[in-house]
Amino acid sequence: MIRVNLIGSGKVAFHLIEKFHSLPVDLRVYARNPEKVIQKFADKIQAFPIAEIQDADITLLAVTDDAVEDVSSMLPIKGQLVVHMAGSRPIHVLSAKNRRGVLYPVQSFTETKSVDYSRITFCVETETAPDQELLENLVHLLGSTAVIMDSDQRLTLHLSAVLVNNFVNHLYFMASELCEKAGISFELLTPLIQETTQKILTMSAQEAQTGPAIRNDRQVLSNHLSALTDPVYHQLYQLFTESIQKKYGKKL
Amino acid sequence: MIRVNLIGSGKVAFHLIEKFHSLPVDLRVYARNPEKVIQKFADKIQAFPIAEIQDADITLLAVTDDAVEDVSSMLPIKGQLVVHMAGSRPIHVLSAKNRRGVLYPVQSFTETKSVDYSRITFCVETETAPDQELLENLVHLLGSTAVIMDSDQRLTLHLSAVLVNNFVNHLYFMASELCEKAGISFELLTPLIQETTQKILTMSAQEAQTGPAIRNDRQVLSNHLSALTDPVYHQLYQLFTESIQKKYGKKL
Repeated sequence: MIRVNLIGSGKVAFHLIEKFHSLPVDLRVYARNPEKVIQKFADKIQAFPIAEIQDADITLLAVTDDAVEDVSSMLPIKGQLVVHMAGSRPIHVLSAKNRRGVLYPVQSFTETKSVDYSRITFCVETETAPDQELLENLVHLLGSTAVIMDSDQRLTLHLSAVLVNNFVNHLYFMASELCEKAGISFELLTPLIQETTQKILTMSAQEAQTGPAIRNDRQVLSNHLSALTDPVYHQLYQLFTESIQKKYGKKL
Repeated sequence: MIRVNLIGSGKVAFHLIEKFHSLPVDLRVYARNPEKVIQKFADKIQAFPIAEIQDADITLLAVTDDAVEDVSSMLPIKGQLVVHMAGSRPIHVLSAKNRRGVLYPVQSFTETKSVDYSRITFCVETETAPDQELLENLVHLLGSTAVIMDSDQRLTLHLSAVLVNNFVNHLYFMASELCEKAGISFELLTPLIQETTQKILTMSAQEAQTGPAIRNDRQVLSNHLSALTDPVYHQLYQLFTESIQKKYGKKL
């Protein structure tokens, strides 16, 4: 049975703890605040301070991106496979006193929503082939897909994930705020939101692009800008228009 | 049987012509270039020059937003119900020599993709109650939903549609371009794109917001900005970060 140390007490850690418990995994959980984990799982899970960490096949750091370096350097173990899960951090931020690896899930985790591991790809990076095999085995045990990726590619993928997830969601937020102020139901936009996402699964974003910016419909662009009183929204609208026109300019 | 004049030769016109042909509608099609319509439907549809327009119960202008005003003023009919389909244009851009109305579908039409009318809401605006009833009847005949909305609200809804459709698609394009340059498959992001859209159907955009901007993870933000060499993308990333932090600032 594979021995896994899991360090963390956030969303990703909680989902993984739950999942590992249903699998043939010898799991030990560690956290800077072990009580948080114990309470979360109503005493059904033991958790230990990081200082008490023991050897394992894989030690997973399910901590925030900016905690990876600190937690890795404070680990009182040596020669172990220590793996961070931060898309934006290169493998070398991990302390060299252990074997280093990365396991980055290309998905957004929500505490209240169950995770479908069959729809998650983990980007795997290691320093040696045997460590790569270890991580691939763990990914397959979770029922997920593994893809080998270096730190530079992973940063680009993480940045792309921020665009299609965090920034798309902020556009949803801007729209919902505008609708609310105008007394319109945001739900009127649901079919359009779904259509936009469905399209990108069957055609390229370039083919799917429509709207006043690509048509350079000046009257619409000016009406929209007048309706945007928030100065940051106003600038965002102008920049999107500029960016779309720059990309498709030769087509106009 | 309801008599409909349809003016136009673009995507929306083509979809509507096809649909009206399957319904109990006495349809006559007009276009600035009737040949384009006739060819498109392989001689199965007749189309006439706009100068030959006849009276009907409803005259629909399925033309681009910036052509509405011109086409409306050149119509050689009087006292008829003339209806434009432009989300961004107020009802009063239509010539006052006819009864005026608006029928704006909150959806994006693609020429190669069939339209599910049961998932389309039409925003209806008229000057009189009987005209409103006429348009509502037409919407129901299409199998769609009608919602009454004035010109100001419609402009806000159209602007919101640009955010959640055109701008979201441009973020997909930016991500696909970044992935391509880094030799990564854009399809790795498909589950995340779907998850982002699914979330907005079950929780508010405010609850769904995650990412380095809302966490103010300076190292990630700086790594991402360094990876964005296109100056417009760079500015867009900075503005999104600023906008997200402005909205959620008090929570940090």
